[in-house]
Amino acid sequence: MKPKALLFDVFGTVVDWRSGLIRDLESHFRKYPNQAHPAEVADAWRSRYQPSMAPIREGLRPFTKLDQLHEENLRHISQTLQFDLGTEEDIAWLVRSWHRLPAWMDSVPGIEALKTHVICASQSNGHIALAVNLARYNSFSWDVILGAEVVRTYKPAPESYLRACEALGLAPSECMMVAAHNSDLAAAKAVGLQTAFVRRPTEHGPSQQSDLVAEDDWDVLADDLLQLHDQLK
Amino acid sequence: MKPKALLFDVFGTVVDWRSGLIRDLESHFRKYPNQAHPAEVADAWRSRYQPSMAPIREGLRPFTKLDQLHEENLRHISQTLQFDLGTEEDIAWLVRSWHRLPAWMDSVPGIEALKTHVICASQSNGHIALAVNLARYNSFSWDVILGAEVVRTYKPAPESYLRACEALGLAPSECMMVAAHNSDLAAAKAVGLQTAFVRRPTEHGPSQQSDLVAEDDWDVLADDLLQLHDQLK
Repeated sequence: MKPKALLFDVFGTVVDWRSGLIRDLESHFRKYPNQAHPAEVADAWRSRYQPSMAPIREGLRPFTKLDQLHEENLRHISQTLQFDLGTEEDIAWLVRSWHRLPAWMDSVPGIEALKTHVICASQSNGHIALAVNLARYNSFSWDVILGAEVVRTYKPAPESYLRACEALGLAPSECMMVAAHNSDLAAAKAVGLQTAFVRRPTEHGPSQQSDLVAEDDWDVLADDLLQLHDQLK
Repeated sequence: MKPKALLFDVFGTVVDWRSGLIRDLESHFRKYPNQAHPAEVADAWRSRYQPSMAPIREGLRPFTKLDQLHEENLRHISQTLQFDLGTEEDIAWLVRSWHRLPAWMDSVPGIEALKTHVICASQSNGHIALAVNLARYNSFSWDVILGAEVVRTYKPAPESYLRACEALGLAPSECMMVAAHNSDLAAAKAVGLQTAFVRRPTEHGPSQQSDLVAEDDWDVLADDLLQLHDQLK
């Protein structure tokens, strides 16, 4: 059955977070030189992303927007990696880097093409403001942004997928999760969604080890969003 | 100060609900003839819209999606106006009429133009699924749909405006409510938003009495969304 809606993971699947963070960290370290490798900082920052959401998913911490988690994680790695964060304005600018991450080359035309025949929803752990800013920065033509506030938890909690489908008035089986991460798809499949794996072999840089291949029998495999469009049309 | 985001009322301001309902009621009454005037039914249906949301705004009834309120209101007026609702499928089709209401002529180009320099958000009492369907039906290019689920109450409750601004990461003073209804603008102004009154003198048909003129000193007055764009750019 063809899905009525596609729920897109964003960080890694639609935007190249690593290149975007490195770009802005390089700028930061031109101001505060010789302290750390931008790529190393970007990877360390991202590596704290999932763990920092765990207490919220488990109900041990109230819902907290990603901006705040990103700031806490940045302050933490500035101590472990020993680099200078600069002023409060510098920190705020770095945290906002997540609002201006560049799209993969196929993302804008892919969403445009898919949108002609299926609902395209941003279904990120990012809050609405972040997703709106990312969409305007890149000209994504989402039908709807199902930010973290709509589902009130973080992926891969089952409710994050189920509440997204419910917000669209659709059954889970009518929706397809689109992600570059096997774990995201596994969690979506477990609650009844269809699944599309989009390979992003350089999300984690040139020596990426994870998510290079499909680890389950996903409904669709594609190398980019235009290929996804070809397979669904 | 130029607003960073426009929050659009939808029913009446962006779409012509009355013409859309009459169109579908005419179709219904061709199937079940000689029972009621489509325009009379449309007006009666809409007149129960605000009262049916009151218990939810006042916390006397849990949050309920507009589809369900529309269905309850339709069943009620079918008894007071004594017309045949037909089968459950007919009822569901009529309730879905609110998902396929036609836009005013200036709405699509107006939103397109405004979106080039300010965030354009659908801020309706409709739930997300309804707003998504309306947007796809008409090709509205919203940056974001702040459906009723995001604010978890109904306008003109103060929280409906404040939570919409918060979801965008903006102060109320950075946002402008755009509506064809003085009451909506008054409630938005009371919590600090800027206001734009868009005249829709035939929203309630040819003999409309209400909202023909601005009843307060709104920040912007416009005859349509393209005029609003001219005034804001």
